[in-house]
Amino acid sequence: MKYCNQCGEKVDQAIPENDNRLRYVCVSCETIHYQNPNIVAGTLPLIMGDDGREKVLLCKRAIEPRYGLWTLPAGFMENGETVEAAALRESQEEANVELDNLKLYSVMSMPQINQVYMIFKGDIVGNSFSPGIESLETQLFDEEDIPWSEMAFNVITQTLQCYFDDRKKQHRSQLTDYQVHNLVYQVPKKYLNTDKT
Amino acid sequence: MKYCNQCGEKVDQAIPENDNRLRYVCVSCETIHYQNPNIVAGTLPLIMGDDGREKVLLCKRAIEPRYGLWTLPAGFMENGETVEAAALRESQEEANVELDNLKLYSVMSMPQINQVYMIFKGDIVGNSFSPGIESLETQLFDEEDIPWSEMAFNVITQTLQCYFDDRKKQHRSQLTDYQVHNLVYQVPKKYLNTDKT
Ligand SMILES: [Zn+2]
Ligand SMILES: [Zn+2]
Repeated sequence: MKYCNQCGEKVDQAIPENDNRLRYVCVSCETIHYQNPNIVAGTLPLIMGDDGREKVLLCKRAIEPRYGLWTLPAGFMENGETVEAAALRESQEEANVELDNLKLYSVMSMPQINQVYMIFKGDIVGNSFSPGIESLETQLFDEEDIPWSEMAFNVITQTLQCYFDDRKKQHRSQLTDYQVHNLVYQVPKKYLNTDKT
Repeated sequence: MKYCNQCGEKVDQAIPENDNRLRYVCVSCETIHYQNPNIVAGTLPLIMGDDGREKVLLCKRAIEPRYGLWTLPAGFMENGETVEAAALRESQEEANVELDNLKLYSVMSMPQINQVYMIFKGDIVGNSFSPGIESLETQLFDEEDIPWSEMAFNVITQTLQCYFDDRKKQHRSQLTDYQVHNLVYQVPKKYLNTDKT
């Protein structure tokens, strides 16, 4: 950030009164420009196969970063939406999939890139899905077929691992209901873009 | 938003390619300025009283909006934090209270004002608390003493109501563990500030 979006004059970094953090402050109109983390909302789309085994829908990315790698449908929550609405919209956009019985499943803070992932479990409606504009492929996977070495984002890998662990516990009746997993994900340094605007 | 924070030229509203929403786009450098919801992180601080009854800590606001009304410690999550770290920081700042055993308890989308509240249950450490700079008072309340008619924010009232309901169910053994409540809160029109920057 170099200029004030209210008046077009230069901004400077300063700690405002009653604050303890450096903020961008306009040298002319004195507007303080706060910068805050963004929510990435997505889904873990599930369906019971004809073989009696529950499957997970993954999307192969048609965009950078991580072109050609697999992920869950997810993207930035927009103004005017609820978190669920954002998760459903992203699922529709990336996988043309409709979901019901949505339940918040994982909340992952990524403090190094100022993002919070919020992933909802949901049941695929009508066994219907196909690649949206940002996906090359959409495919159902059994746990043992998940392409672990071709996953786009570790934060998604971690959510899937939590889910398969929970599912095993539930099969063994050690888990009465799925709990929300609230985790912190430390992004490897090599992926950090420190050029904050 | 009137000016580009990258180059200082004017912004215009336009739907960028491969997008379907109006964004602020710089007429000169073509930077797209996305606007996204903010997370408000806070806590529901709990302590078992000497009378064997669990109490909730509330803060009386020393700042606008809702000066003089009661609320839970909460505030905007900052860049570089996890959601929990933000909730703990706000609790420290507003009530000089330290908490442990933090568990995500409610997630409330407020689409009309582009906020998502995330409130964590936590146990007060050392029975120690006092008003921070943004609070006039901090006080422990039994359920029947909660000043329901003097609460600052309906979203906080709703979280407290969920909690007392859950606690009753747990006493009756109808609830094995507290679940996360994921709710949508519709802000009454009179509170809406539509002057988005
Ligand atoms: Zn300015
Ligand atoms: Zn520009």
